[in-house]
Amino acid sequence: MRATTLHAPGDIRVTEVPDPTLGAPTDAIIKVTAGCICGSDLWPYRGENPITAGNTIGHECIGIVEEVGSEVTSFAPGDFVIVPFCHCDNTCAHCRAGVQSACVNLGMTQSGQGEYALVGQAEGSLVKLDGRPDASLVPSLLALSDVMPTGWHAAVAAGVPEGGTVVVVGDGAVGLCGVLAASVMGAEKVIVMSRHESRQKIATEFGATHIVAARGKEGAAEVKELTDGIGADAVLECVGTDQSMGTAFAVARPGSTVGFVGVPHGVEPPLGRMFQKNVGLRGGMAPVRRYLPELLDLVVSGRINPGLVFDSTLPLDQVAEGYRAMDERRSIKVMLDLEA
Amino acid sequence: MRATTLHAPGDIRVTEVPDPTLGAPTDAIIKVTAGCICGSDLWPYRGENPITAGNTIGHECIGIVEEVGSEVTSFAPGDFVIVPFCHCDNTCAHCRAGVQSACVNLGMTQSGQGEYALVGQAEGSLVKLDGRPDASLVPSLLALSDVMPTGWHAAVAAGVPEGGTVVVVGDGAVGLCGVLAASVMGAEKVIVMSRHESRQKIATEFGATHIVAARGKEGAAEVKELTDGIGADAVLECVGTDQSMGTAFAVARPGSTVGFVGVPHGVEPPLGRMFQKNVGLRGGMAPVRRYLPELLDLVVSGRINPGLVFDSTLPLDQVAEGYRAMDERRSIKVMLDLEA
Repeated sequence: MRATTLHAPGDIRVTEVPDPTLGAPTDAIIKVTAGCICGSDLWPYRGENPITAGNTIGHECIGIVEEVGSEVTSFAPGDFVIVPFCHCDNTCAHCRAGVQSACVNLGMTQSGQGEYALVGQAEGSLVKLDGRPDASLVPSLLALSDVMPTGWHAAVAAGVPEGGTVVVVGDGAVGLCGVLAASVMGAEKVIVMSRHESRQKIATEFGATHIVAARGKEGAAEVKELTDGIGADAVLECVGTDQSMGTAFAVARPGSTVGFVGVPHGVEPPLGRMFQKNVGLRGGMAPVRRYLPELLDLVVSGRINPGLVFDSTLPLDQVAEGYRAMDERRSIKVMLDLEA
Repeated sequence: MRATTLHAPGDIRVTEVPDPTLGAPTDAIIKVTAGCICGSDLWPYRGENPITAGNTIGHECIGIVEEVGSEVTSFAPGDFVIVPFCHCDNTCAHCRAGVQSACVNLGMTQSGQGEYALVGQAEGSLVKLDGRPDASLVPSLLALSDVMPTGWHAAVAAGVPEGGTVVVVGDGAVGLCGVLAASVMGAEKVIVMSRHESRQKIATEFGATHIVAARGKEGAAEVKELTDGIGADAVLECVGTDQSMGTAFAVARPGSTVGFVGVPHGVEPPLGRMFQKNVGLRGGMAPVRRYLPELLDLVVSGRINPGLVFDSTLPLDQVAEGYRAMDERRSIKVMLDLEA
């Protein structure tokens, strides 16, 4: 099959690789109809994470079940499914506690930017639709494989209170989904820290009530002013750098929590401030499967449209241009149309 | 008056210092009947925090109101009061949100190990008893000025669930109070990590169901076994070192929270693990005034007896021996009897 492979920093290609095969009775193979590029794919692309040259990349996709292992009973070839980027059996103690991203049988989608993806723990991970979705729903359904549940998780971890004030640090696709989550959860004031006009526009469509373009101390001061000097009731840290984490804590009111979902790179949480101000930190990899039923309902009913984060759609052949566009921040998030 | 003063690392004395005076209309002066030594007093005593030679030390006490400023209307000379170590107006936005330890008018008890203590924001901070307490209640009432609310705060921050499993890291006075808090909150299994027989005994009286004497990886492995390999539903970190924090995260189940109240010294939270396992961290300086009414009820009704953490009572003159005994871990916590 044709799939996206990474060969060296910046060297992303579509190459012919062996079709995935069922390696365990709990596996499934999905014919990918749409995949996408994740912000976290940019770390290995930029050479900041170690790679194995020639390996496939990509963990976000939706598609049609092609083949299932003998222990997969709820799904059959032809089913249209959302594929959570992290796989779980949905039965272990951690899954039952709602932390499917720490499942004892945790796995991750392989070759999600290829013609066929391999999914482990298919029974516990996949979520099926009734028939093929309308084309207009495809971007939002694809967003459910990772970016929307991740933004949602930031909001859950931060404990967004109904009627409260929320700050979202980061205007990437995850941050924008965090804005949407906070808005759906009933936050009255949703402040997004964003300098990019195209992202500000989507943030506003997603329910942001205030935009702060300034960064660092100046940005934090603006937020403080917007919150009567008190700070935010909940803060969503959707970047993962030390600077963004610092900003998150600077705008969090005493007693609140910073929900973090950006994979941390070189972050040192300001423990002294956390102690002094009683500001908590919680989050991590999103338990996608936990949120999927609720989020799927919201998408299918038209209440949310997270697919707006895709500002570019490319055929698989042009995936390299997709990586370049996201790396250079010309694009927020790129969808790959495998049926194009 | 006579008060405890610190002159250099290890050089603690009782010296004659000027009586405290009302510096603001919100102040009060308390004739101390009992004070005590805090684990955090050992940091400057050991030379690990900067000091000003000759300054008074001590922030935990109970006693009788001697004099109040013009804006203090709920307390009058002769009232017997609990003095929270951190002072708050109990009216600002942070206080109203239950984070009195981040009050905009935050202060701290001065010369609590002396004959008279100075309290700021007396109106919002002090809690009065009906008359003089019975002598048998004194240790537990004194424990309410800091150590018991601090252990309680660890349990609140960690979100101790009724019927759940809790691990307490640290068998100092705060850790022991954490055990008591978890037990009162209805935890079914309370595991305390403790190597000292005298402390284990109090932990058991406070409701610990299991004791793990091993430390580090071995200790964490024992806890894992006690929790069916899952880890604890809530972890109370009551020490403040990097090792104790590491242990706390090692025994926390995915999705749980580490409640921390030990002033952190050289701690680097394991952010990678926090992210991967979705384990949160929250806590800090205890909002003592928030918990006082409830805890005072529990003490006066005889339901809790946190005063057991005082395994030694000394007259003020012997305060230096008290510091030595706590520094050498010969004593868990030393009460100073100012009426002796």
